[in-house]
Amino acid sequence: MNLLEEKENIQFQLTDELIEQVELLIEEKNDKELHKLLDDFHYADIAEILDELNLEEAMYVIKLLDSETTSDILMEMDEDNREKVLKNLSAKEIAEEIEELDTDDAADIISELPEDRQQDVIAQIEDEDHKAEIRELLAYDEDTAGGLMAKELVKVYETWTVAGCMRRIRGQAKDVTRVHSIYVVDKQERLIGRLSLKDLITAKSDQKIAEIKNSNVDSVNVKDDAEDVIKVMQKYDLEAVPVVDDNQKLLGRITIDDIVDVMKEEADKDYQLAAGITGDVDSDDSIYQLTKARLPWLFLGLVGGVGAFLIMEGFQSAFSKYAVLFFFTPLIAAMAGNVGVQSSAIIVQGLANDDVKGSINSRLIKEMLLAALNGSILALFLFVFVWVTQGDVNTALAISTSLVVVIIVAGLIGTFVPLFLNKQGIDPAIATGPFITTSNDIFGILIYFWIAKLILGI
Amino acid sequence: MNLLEEKENIQFQLTDELIEQVELLIEEKNDKELHKLLDDFHYADIAEILDELNLEEAMYVIKLLDSETTSDILMEMDEDNREKVLKNLSAKEIAEEIEELDTDDAADIISELPEDRQQDVIAQIEDEDHKAEIRELLAYDEDTAGGLMAKELVKVYETWTVAGCMRRIRGQAKDVTRVHSIYVVDKQERLIGRLSLKDLITAKSDQKIAEIKNSNVDSVNVKDDAEDVIKVMQKYDLEAVPVVDDNQKLLGRITIDDIVDVMKEEADKDYQLAAGITGDVDSDDSIYQLTKARLPWLFLGLVGGVGAFLIMEGFQSAFSKYAVLFFFTPLIAAMAGNVGVQSSAIIVQGLANDDVKGSINSRLIKEMLLAALNGSILALFLFVFVWVTQGDVNTALAISTSLVVVIIVAGLIGTFVPLFLNKQGIDPAIATGPFITTSNDIFGILIYFWIAKLILGI
Repeated sequence: MNLLEEKENIQFQLTDELIEQVELLIEEKNDKELHKLLDDFHYADIAEILDELNLEEAMYVIKLLDSETTSDILMEMDEDNREKVLKNLSAKEIAEEIEELDTDDAADIISELPEDRQQDVIAQIEDEDHKAEIRELLAYDEDTAGGLMAKELVKVYETWTVAGCMRRIRGQAKDVTRVHSIYVVDKQERLIGRLSLKDLITAKSDQKIAEIKNSNVDSVNVKDDAEDVIKVMQKYDLEAVPVVDDNQKLLGRITIDDIVDVMKEEADKDYQLAAGITGDVDSDDSIYQLTKARLPWLFLGLVGGVGAFLIMEGFQSAFSKYAVLFFFTPLIAAMAGNVGVQSSAIIVQGLANDDVKGSINSRLIKEMLLAALNGSILALFLFVFVWVTQGDVNTALAISTSLVVVIIVAGLIGTFVPLFLNKQGIDPAIATGPFITTSNDIFGILIYFWIAKLILGI
Repeated sequence: MNLLEEKENIQFQLTDELIEQVELLIEEKNDKELHKLLDDFHYADIAEILDELNLEEAMYVIKLLDSETTSDILMEMDEDNREKVLKNLSAKEIAEEIEELDTDDAADIISELPEDRQQDVIAQIEDEDHKAEIRELLAYDEDTAGGLMAKELVKVYETWTVAGCMRRIRGQAKDVTRVHSIYVVDKQERLIGRLSLKDLITAKSDQKIAEIKNSNVDSVNVKDDAEDVIKVMQKYDLEAVPVVDDNQKLLGRITIDDIVDVMKEEADKDYQLAAGITGDVDSDDSIYQLTKARLPWLFLGLVGGVGAFLIMEGFQSAFSKYAVLFFFTPLIAAMAGNVGVQSSAIIVQGLANDDVKGSINSRLIKEMLLAALNGSILALFLFVFVWVTQGDVNTALAISTSLVVVIIVAGLIGTFVPLFLNKQGIDPAIATGPFITTSNDIFGILIYFWIAKLILGI
């Protein structure tokens, strides 16, 4: 007993030896040993192993294990690999996997299939209730509460007694992996309260549900944005939230483990956007996929660089006297880029967390003061450096004054653009990274030469 | 009833009118109306209101409401504001708040207090068990499982019967906000299994716990890193995980709502680091705090810019013949920076998600191929542009060849640095953003002029 428990406590390690062992057993078609090895692992661990095998080997394991396990494994596999496995399964086989899944996971799998296969697979599902529920879920937009919810929940009528309720719950609970809350509905199936199993256990058996129910039940509308659902669940520390329609009719529930996955995806996506990567790639993706995600942003940088080139070429005549100006363009461009990214990141994050309050104007004034302060400190260092190395106070003044103005403008652009995009209903996260860097490079260099021209009279 | 439910369904909106209304009621000392207004709100909503009030007003509300509500409100308030409120409460008042909180939240609050106040507050806690448990939790490092766990859990002995268990659980469950799992222990308090309330409800009342328990229980060690706990809970979709010591003795449990908060903080921190912001600031922080978080990274950029200046000054003599080279330095610097950030972001994210497999060498080779491919495509465009506008094939060749090499080197630096830092046990996230941008700016411009020198013979 104890040995077994200690084993559980050790975190699963995906080693090369383990993969080789699995590959060898597959090659030998040694089903007995393979079963013995894999049956000890959690399905999430088996999914990790399958992600490392080639398709043929993965299919061998999928066919070997029973559909109760393989359906969970499929859910945990990398999306690209899952797609390949599903391509190799018949509609009937996929339907069998789906029978084992909760409705939300089932709908997710089906929606990943090509349109024409979706109907074939649904037609093969034997459980009529399950089929109808999946059909219902497929109709909702995936970025809404409806797209996140599952139909599995425990529901009781307010007129029931505690004893009757316990009896009926034994039946319903079998289909529900985790009972978070028991939802109380009226005769019209409208959500009017909730109960915890704890409340039920601690109540007297002849009490009516209406007496012991908690009427204070948070819910979300089936059409609410997924992002708003996440915010509500996080703010109110909910582990599950019931989903209702406009008439308050109980339709399903969303559990926190689904929310955790969505949160992770959102955070990863924003992080990548800020770094100039689109399309949710990871480091194991192919060079083609990575190029598709990275090249467009680099191309934007190239266009920006050509813009900077044209500006500098325009001021070419000043080189003979003020060569030093040209040598500072990378510094100016870098500072404009850095400040722009800082201010846009802070706004994008504030918007995501709903704590950007007050008007756009007050934001811009604050960023201007902040940029002026930071810019002045940095400019002071630059002034001393240029003065000491070049021995010309005018040049030093021109370059350091420009730096302050460039930093202020960069901060304002970085603040304004995401706020503006957000007002237009566009995801402000696209404004971070290369987009801001590139536009600030060009504006920065242009402003820099203009101001130098004013001060030095070039 | 229905009206009340519909109200629940409408998301709370923090409006200026609401704030003004609260402020007016505080000014009038109209406690009755204030109670009436606030009692309808969730504590997380009241926390949002208090975050908008000044300290005096916030203190008024805190003193008005009972400690059961205010303890929850305090937990949800912005950390800076909470600190101010706690400063204005006596040790006895803080202890009263803490009596109402779960042990994990209580320990968090106490650990935020200055050292000398901590002991005063703990001394004032009346419940001796609560006091001992909080003392125990304060001893753990906050970045470990021990620092995340709460002592509240429902525990049964394997020798109990289902009926006896139900009776005893009624007592224990009162202290536990949410019963996720019932943990089964042996006489030595070692964790040997788990049960759900569902299992208990569906079992016969004379069955022994040992018969119906599930021995397959995941647990984490009290010394495990918080980050590893997050990974385990996310991977295995756990909503709560028991925490044990080296002897498998059950010490506490971690619930997913705490994990969600930690995940959010980590994601925010990494996002800010990538943008060159340290110290977890938000857009509402003071200009001083924002400067402290942003200026050091800008200073790094300044140093990088001075480096670029020195390199360009060194190649000054080439200007008369190849001025065009100098006009492309912002482009070269921008491309080096962008590629570096892309490759480091993808590695940092891969490391965080544990899916960077294989050797460092194979990563570097892949990034090299990717950078060579992207670089060649971009260089082709640049080659045509320079050739057409400048009419000199050699210059075009020199600049575009440099671009390819610069992009490859930038990609390699972006890949290598985070992998290296990670191997050294340093958070690789600091390698993204300004750090990579700045070093790539300097290396990029240096390589660019070297190659141009080789090809053009300057």
